[in-house]
Amino acid sequence: MSRRIKLVVAYDGTDFRGWAAQTGHRTVQSTLIEAVRQVSGEDCEITGASRTDSGAHALGQVCHFDLEAAIPAERWPAALNRALPRDIRVRSAAEVDSAFHSRFCARDRSYRYRILQNESDPFRGRFAHREPRPLDVDRMRASATLLIGLHDFIAFTAELSPDVGNTMRTLRSVGVSRVRDEVRIDVVGTAFLRGMMRRIAGALLEVGRDRRKPESLRALLVGGLNPDTQPVVLPAHGLTLMRVRYGRHPVDNRANNETASDEA
Amino acid sequence: MSRRIKLVVAYDGTDFRGWAAQTGHRTVQSTLIEAVRQVSGEDCEITGASRTDSGAHALGQVCHFDLEAAIPAERWPAALNRALPRDIRVRSAAEVDSAFHSRFCARDRSYRYRILQNESDPFRGRFAHREPRPLDVDRMRASATLLIGLHDFIAFTAELSPDVGNTMRTLRSVGVSRVRDEVRIDVVGTAFLRGMMRRIAGALLEVGRDRRKPESLRALLVGGLNPDTQPVVLPAHGLTLMRVRYGRHPVDNRANNETASDEA
Repeated sequence: MSRRIKLVVAYDGTDFRGWAAQTGHRTVQSTLIEAVRQVSGEDCEITGASRTDSGAHALGQVCHFDLEAAIPAERWPAALNRALPRDIRVRSAAEVDSAFHSRFCARDRSYRYRILQNESDPFRGRFAHREPRPLDVDRMRASATLLIGLHDFIAFTAELSPDVGNTMRTLRSVGVSRVRDEVRIDVVGTAFLRGMMRRIAGALLEVGRDRRKPESLRALLVGGLNPDTQPVVLPAHGLTLMRVRYGRHPVDNRANNETASDEA
Repeated sequence: MSRRIKLVVAYDGTDFRGWAAQTGHRTVQSTLIEAVRQVSGEDCEITGASRTDSGAHALGQVCHFDLEAAIPAERWPAALNRALPRDIRVRSAAEVDSAFHSRFCARDRSYRYRILQNESDPFRGRFAHREPRPLDVDRMRASATLLIGLHDFIAFTAELSPDVGNTMRTLRSVGVSRVRDEVRIDVVGTAFLRGMMRRIAGALLEVGRDRRKPESLRALLVGGLNPDTQPVVLPAHGLTLMRVRYGRHPVDNRANNETASDEA
């Protein structure tokens, strides 16, 4: 009888080539698989709620794996943290029902994009995109509300290929706030297309700098894919996966194309 | 007529091979020299107040250089920050008298060593040494006061060679404080021997874990160099040069061996 273990994981994505395992590259997924092998002696597959991009960070990534080893869940965080490098940390572990799936059962994901308006701080440069020019946060906030709800986000994806699939996504909230010298864009959505969060941040940055009309976001949501008006994609290092939420009862959203993948 | 420019510089030392230029390595000094060249077209020498170790950070490193270019001091921070990578930032610049010397005129240096008592935060792992086991901060603090004043710190240096020179140094204050899940060791001294700050932190960590008697620090200060009792050296990434202080009137301490070099 194998057990299914769910982990909540945080990582500084700077030195990872993203979440997804790739031969010859240091990725979060392959580093976790190796740590599980060191702790249990077993090879496993690890599935994450979100395939974060190269350089993006996570405070609350969720993943799961199946194992034969009878290691109690409460022992996993300390054991894995001893085996893991310092830029990836296991925050908690739980044994879950085999119906639980970190990706398909996720109800929504919360991402934060950080914009640093400070030229002289070298410590947050890994975790925030630097933009010293003034930003009109009220204008950004007004524009952000236009994105809430179910929309076609094809104009916000990095994929230009025709096989991108269903590009309808639901955003539950889009917040813009200033905290001292930082502007934070907090978005909660069912799931995100590849590059979507970084283009939302790019569009709002353009609005904040008066390079784009706030109402223009409405046109983007109905205009399909047009390279001339597509928002700029901001760098991945400003992005952090904050949290993945699950319902009380595991629901498998596999049939619902909208949440079948999340690539931020 | 050349001008002398004084800079206050902050850096995330993770990806630098320390301050001092070394052929074939990315160092803070050589990165700054290259940025000055890009901005002014001139080659210069840059002298820093402290030769921070590979991996150590700085919030307030001070350095100076001489240049022919008539660039006003207030233009330097923005110009250099455009030319510099994101892990090194110029916080301020000033034109100073040619008698000013960042190293020889420094009155004292403040260093902080951070100990992180949290296993699940990957973001501070670059800037703090991880020690999840309990530390008795009151015990550390009591022990720390023994280091204040003028002492022979040979037991705290990394150099075992006989040509280490004068190992007498004055510490003005040694503080130990707990801020949430972090223990901070703040030391202000005229100058520091190589590895000295990291061995002070190592000795205090040993005291905090009850592996060393608080009074034993007194014996270290009078016992010379004894590898059997020498405190452990903690890793450089926990160390940050916080500030370098200068007097109102530039004083050249070159003749005073004590402050002639600072290698933390």
